[in-house]
Amino acid sequence: MSEALRTDLYQLTMMQAYWKSGHKPEATFDYFVRKIPAGSYLVTAGLSYVLDYIENLHFEDNDIEYLRTQGFNEEFLDFLGDFRFTGDILAMPEGSIAFPLEPIIRITAPIMEAQLVETYILNKMNFSTLIATKAARVVYAARGRGIAEFGLRRAQGDGHLEATRATYIGGCTSTSNVLAGKIFGIPVSGTMAHSFVTSFEHEIDAFRAYADTFPSKCFLLIDTYNSIEGAKKAVIVGKELEQTGEKLQGVRLDSGNLSELSKGVRRILDDAGLGYVKIVASGDLNEWKIDELMRKGAKIDLFGVGTELITGRPAPALDGIYKLSEVAEHGRHVPRMKLSEETVKATLPGKKRVWRIVEDGGFVKDVISLDSEVVDNAVPLLEPVVKNGKLICNRPSLVQIREIAARNLAKLPDEYRKLEGAPVYPVELSSGLTALRERLVKKIRLEEIGLKI
Amino acid sequence: MSEALRTDLYQLTMMQAYWKSGHKPEATFDYFVRKIPAGSYLVTAGLSYVLDYIENLHFEDNDIEYLRTQGFNEEFLDFLGDFRFTGDILAMPEGSIAFPLEPIIRITAPIMEAQLVETYILNKMNFSTLIATKAARVVYAARGRGIAEFGLRRAQGDGHLEATRATYIGGCTSTSNVLAGKIFGIPVSGTMAHSFVTSFEHEIDAFRAYADTFPSKCFLLIDTYNSIEGAKKAVIVGKELEQTGEKLQGVRLDSGNLSELSKGVRRILDDAGLGYVKIVASGDLNEWKIDELMRKGAKIDLFGVGTELITGRPAPALDGIYKLSEVAEHGRHVPRMKLSEETVKATLPGKKRVWRIVEDGGFVKDVISLDSEVVDNAVPLLEPVVKNGKLICNRPSLVQIREIAARNLAKLPDEYRKLEGAPVYPVELSSGLTALRERLVKKIRLEEIGLKI
Repeated sequence: MSEALRTDLYQLTMMQAYWKSGHKPEATFDYFVRKIPAGSYLVTAGLSYVLDYIENLHFEDNDIEYLRTQGFNEEFLDFLGDFRFTGDILAMPEGSIAFPLEPIIRITAPIMEAQLVETYILNKMNFSTLIATKAARVVYAARGRGIAEFGLRRAQGDGHLEATRATYIGGCTSTSNVLAGKIFGIPVSGTMAHSFVTSFEHEIDAFRAYADTFPSKCFLLIDTYNSIEGAKKAVIVGKELEQTGEKLQGVRLDSGNLSELSKGVRRILDDAGLGYVKIVASGDLNEWKIDELMRKGAKIDLFGVGTELITGRPAPALDGIYKLSEVAEHGRHVPRMKLSEETVKATLPGKKRVWRIVEDGGFVKDVISLDSEVVDNAVPLLEPVVKNGKLICNRPSLVQIREIAARNLAKLPDEYRKLEGAPVYPVELSSGLTALRERLVKKIRLEEIGLKI
Repeated sequence: MSEALRTDLYQLTMMQAYWKSGHKPEATFDYFVRKIPAGSYLVTAGLSYVLDYIENLHFEDNDIEYLRTQGFNEEFLDFLGDFRFTGDILAMPEGSIAFPLEPIIRITAPIMEAQLVETYILNKMNFSTLIATKAARVVYAARGRGIAEFGLRRAQGDGHLEATRATYIGGCTSTSNVLAGKIFGIPVSGTMAHSFVTSFEHEIDAFRAYADTFPSKCFLLIDTYNSIEGAKKAVIVGKELEQTGEKLQGVRLDSGNLSELSKGVRRILDDAGLGYVKIVASGDLNEWKIDELMRKGAKIDLFGVGTELITGRPAPALDGIYKLSEVAEHGRHVPRMKLSEETVKATLPGKKRVWRIVEDGGFVKDVISLDSEVVDNAVPLLEPVVKNGKLICNRPSLVQIREIAARNLAKLPDEYRKLEGAPVYPVELSSGLTALRERLVKKIRLEEIGLKI
């Protein structure tokens, strides 16, 4: 299916207006985030989708046919029939650490092309980056314990696949989502539901049936009726497994006071000589609850996290935006910015680069500069990925992207990873960019608003 | 693509355990919601997806191949190769009003079939119902003003299509999402972005170019630099349009104090004789902000709502669940329930029906009964939709579903639609169901927990 129509109608109406008015400069847009919903950093994700989209972007006949029913101009529709993306893109690699205001993707293309792709880029980048970042926070809270992603049933419909992919980039260890496992090669995990237990006459019948089917990878859900009583039955089944030379792998708690219950269950298991049996906990967990459980010394070896992880709850959207920073026509490059009543909604003008200063393997600060500036002893974060419409970058595998993210997260000083009260990571504007912004603000105030400031 | 693997791994491991143990009762499961994130009611949506899924459910060769790599039993994989859904489904039609604990879908099938479909049903129903309900609240707050859905750029990735569909079911009037327009026939709307304005040397150049391209459907975005100054320029272009026999359709505000600005802009337009020009407002709106704007007498004719609507923010997930209520084997029907440490997580046992008492065209109260009970003078809400695996219901169009929702919402007394402080709608349990639940709680306490209560 063509993705060309996965866009806002106004992109197409603007395109027709550009086309008809003959106003067709080359334009540079930045994808960046104004504000991070929780914490100080972002783990970028979604670029793989953007690159596939750019490479395949075209309008199919039935797309054109649909637009005809919406009253678009026939000659403009002819133009769309031959439409391809021909511009240049720089981007931070997937799995990068980014901060507010930093261009994560920079697109330079004829304005109609750069405009059309806005919505898709926002749709894909905002969501994957949101979830990869959330996952990194949850993984951080678990202090080395694994995080199994369990969210498919509460995922936002067809968004489930890219969400699961993003949780893996952010550091989760497995998913319950079999389709995501098949498509992306993510390890899958899962054992039994309450319905399995209640479908049998007695809880222990269910445990025995499961152990008999999966003697070497048996996890038992013990909270259907009462977690402590469930643990005692798990001990019986664990002992029965030992007699066949197998070992019960674990038990899962899914409700109640997980800290207290995990300690009680751990004691029951240990007292019975089943110290090797792991305890998995789930049930509306998030980074804050996991952190609290760890601080209380809960005896939990693995966390299953669903809803909060897969939707980013309580912040289900990242306010990433895509803003024009420069137009160029007849060799003249003119920086652009939005001013707005709300200062936070103003944008940074001009074609820009992002630099990171790294010392002793740790991130120290970033600088956003004009394209023409060079920041000494700093690593440029934007890499060329598309040139004249063609992909020119390596395409790392998902496992490699996950490793890139892990390496980057390891270089982010621990204070910035704190769940609450993390300081703002220093992102400076270069002298050139600062001067340009001041000059443009004055010009707009004078010419567009009539203020002489 | 087959959707069979859009499931949690544990559904498949449980299936293999059922299969191997020979424990294959017929099972009845209910899909219901424990708690509504905001407000007192739900607008159900997503059933169309569930019916398509049920009708087409099968495992493809590459699904089986993938499961083989995950260590499933060969004979079990053979069984999956021939797998089809053969059970019965009752459901509330899409666009119904539902309340907590009421079965929205009731599935009776061999337990392996009923188990497999759980995750897909939860994934699709939870999300569509969440968003249709959110949309109904936003539409209610707007008191008859239209709601244009603008959320694609902040939607949860590929979840965008079904989200947009759900906003339309909930009463939104249009979408910016062109692909959703093409696929579902939803009216599309949209005009221009800030980048269109900033791409021109001056704001008024952008306005003129747009008016020239769309003289009969021109909306101008006036807040790029300053909304009041933008409105004055819109007046100039509006006057120019009048001279060509056309009329400026509207202006859009996207930032700042929308109540104050809309009044100021209305005055500027009216003073210039452009009383016919509509004012559209957008910018992180939701039901509460729209309600406040309406109460403040904002001069807004149409609201554009994006992020909050498309993700359900601040509650991006509905905690709909799918619970076993009965198993039947050898002609013996045994009701089942989950007890749990947390009372709210207990479930209602037995095969059930839902009834609604309607007086003078308004909903009065609902009753959940056992399947064998009849509630007098009440409308049964669950309708047969699948029998022996075959669809047996009409498939209303999206427009019809939207009308069903509107008719139902009109019958819900206004007090239950209040954004805050709506009373709990009365949902009673029948005497038969109450008695069964009490009997089962005692039995479980005695047999599974060893308590003599």
